[in-house]
Amino acid sequence: MTQTLADLGEAELLRRLARFAPPGQLEDDTAQLQQPTADLLINTDVLVESIHFSDATTASTDVGWRAVAANLSDLAASGVDQILGITVGLVAPAHTPWSWVEGVYSGIGSLLQDSGGVLLGGDCSQGPVRMLSITALGTLGTLRLHRSQAMPGDSIVVSGAHGLSRLGLALLLKDPSLLGITLPGSLREQAIQQHQRPLPRLDALKSLVTCKPEQLPWRAGGTDSSDGLLQAIDCLCRSSGCGAVLDKTKLPQAEGWPDGPLWQRWCLSGGEDFELVVTLPAPWAKAWMDEQPSCRQVGVITDQPQAIIWSDDNTPVVAEGFAHYGTS
Amino acid sequence: MTQTLADLGEAELLRRLARFAPPGQLEDDTAQLQQPTADLLINTDVLVESIHFSDATTASTDVGWRAVAANLSDLAASGVDQILGITVGLVAPAHTPWSWVEGVYSGIGSLLQDSGGVLLGGDCSQGPVRMLSITALGTLGTLRLHRSQAMPGDSIVVSGAHGLSRLGLALLLKDPSLLGITLPGSLREQAIQQHQRPLPRLDALKSLVTCKPEQLPWRAGGTDSSDGLLQAIDCLCRSSGCGAVLDKTKLPQAEGWPDGPLWQRWCLSGGEDFELVVTLPAPWAKAWMDEQPSCRQVGVITDQPQAIIWSDDNTPVVAEGFAHYGTS
Repeated sequence: MTQTLADLGEAELLRRLARFAPPGQLEDDTAQLQQPTADLLINTDVLVESIHFSDATTASTDVGWRAVAANLSDLAASGVDQILGITVGLVAPAHTPWSWVEGVYSGIGSLLQDSGGVLLGGDCSQGPVRMLSITALGTLGTLRLHRSQAMPGDSIVVSGAHGLSRLGLALLLKDPSLLGITLPGSLREQAIQQHQRPLPRLDALKSLVTCKPEQLPWRAGGTDSSDGLLQAIDCLCRSSGCGAVLDKTKLPQAEGWPDGPLWQRWCLSGGEDFELVVTLPAPWAKAWMDEQPSCRQVGVITDQPQAIIWSDDNTPVVAEGFAHYGTS
Repeated sequence: MTQTLADLGEAELLRRLARFAPPGQLEDDTAQLQQPTADLLINTDVLVESIHFSDATTASTDVGWRAVAANLSDLAASGVDQILGITVGLVAPAHTPWSWVEGVYSGIGSLLQDSGGVLLGGDCSQGPVRMLSITALGTLGTLRLHRSQAMPGDSIVVSGAHGLSRLGLALLLKDPSLLGITLPGSLREQAIQQHQRPLPRLDALKSLVTCKPEQLPWRAGGTDSSDGLLQAIDCLCRSSGCGAVLDKTKLPQAEGWPDGPLWQRWCLSGGEDFELVVTLPAPWAKAWMDEQPSCRQVGVITDQPQAIIWSDDNTPVVAEGFAHYGTS
């Protein structure tokens, strides 16, 4: 018989979850963290069942992994040096199998093991749907990326291909919009991997920091593309009072993905790509692309507030939205 | 017409929430916190609609207040010095009125203004029920309270009366178990206030620290009674490998509350009292009670692992449980 959270009771649930944290870590009302050696970066992300994940497309271990990946991606897009740890707020119905919760925490543990940081603490509650709220903490490194630090003339560089996570979801759901499109097996695998086990681009941040030309100041605009590439560029433009010109021919396409409206739409607004989107002076951009082969320049920042246009015909760049709220 | 979150859209929602944080605070993917001057204490608490709050008993401003109070109470029970701030994970259906969310953040802001700390950041998502996950950060002061630091012979001292929050809830729900019980108006008001606007006992922690007799080391056991007084004592005993003897005549009764089974049950397991429950050497206990008139000694720690008994007849102390999961 499946063992549920109701079968375990809260005390036993907490005892089992404690195995995913350092010994004694979950023993007190609060977690204690040694005085950090630098400023802190803090981020909270919420994932809700049937909005951000579902049993149909995401194994429990992947739910845990992705939840942490979303947080660490935000830390990477802000200039984190060392990941310190996370707290987890877990909501789940009493009939939830323990094996599902175990899977989530095991996925959380896997990514923390790869990226540094520990499970610091958290809270559990019963509720009508499964929900995870994760808060991640890290120390700030040399470069603080801000959304508001884009400047006209900056190159817009992304750390990798876009649209893959959305493609992976479509493949898992056998989405009819894929009918008649031939995709190589390697791309299919890559897309599903990107959807289920996205990697926060801590590696790309590291190379961005190490490759800065000496004469340039520590100034770059940055965010991540968790809500889609176009929304990331829009955020940078709005916060910086700038605009952007994008080059259709330089959109970051994964190998083997045929051109077409589907590709372009998911590249711009598929979402959950978890790549860095950075605006920076051209010499630094070049140095970064040399250092990090997955990086691509997609356009340039302009002084036209909030106008994001194509370079070939000056028409506005539009894409279906990624709205957490609202009907559009 | 009521304005809902769907009417606003996510961008406008975030713009409005930003008013509750320092200028520019919510602008980036992450919050930045100046390098702390001491070790950090971190706590996450989750509140779910119809489990932890409901429109019937809790105004939106009180939902926000109580959510922060629960977190700060945990920080107080660990020895916090300065409250730094909180992040908020908010889940709500698209049809939620903006006025409800505004109320929640206004309640959050009120308690932060009283206790120190700011809204650092957060995340919002649509979901089938309202849910708040708050993570609070503070610096550790001179005294680190641990659950595992109780020692046989310690006095068990609580920072105030218990059962009031449960009584307040019963009054708001017109609970039939109150039929035939006469309660003075002042007690009714106090109980409802305690349910809707509990105060984290940062004041009691402060006096606990300042009144320590010089010859004693900085060693005391501590937790808060958010899950009820008996569960708090049980936690201290389990973590410390000790037991406790409680004195029925010294249970922390609010003025005007008549004796009886209802009083004793809610005192022991009503929950959400948010008082400090501390075990400490007798001279320190006396000094604390002298300094802080709301403090009461309810018993003594023993070397009988996990046995919590009454002093008059040595029978086990039992009370209805406060189980987040499970049927009992």
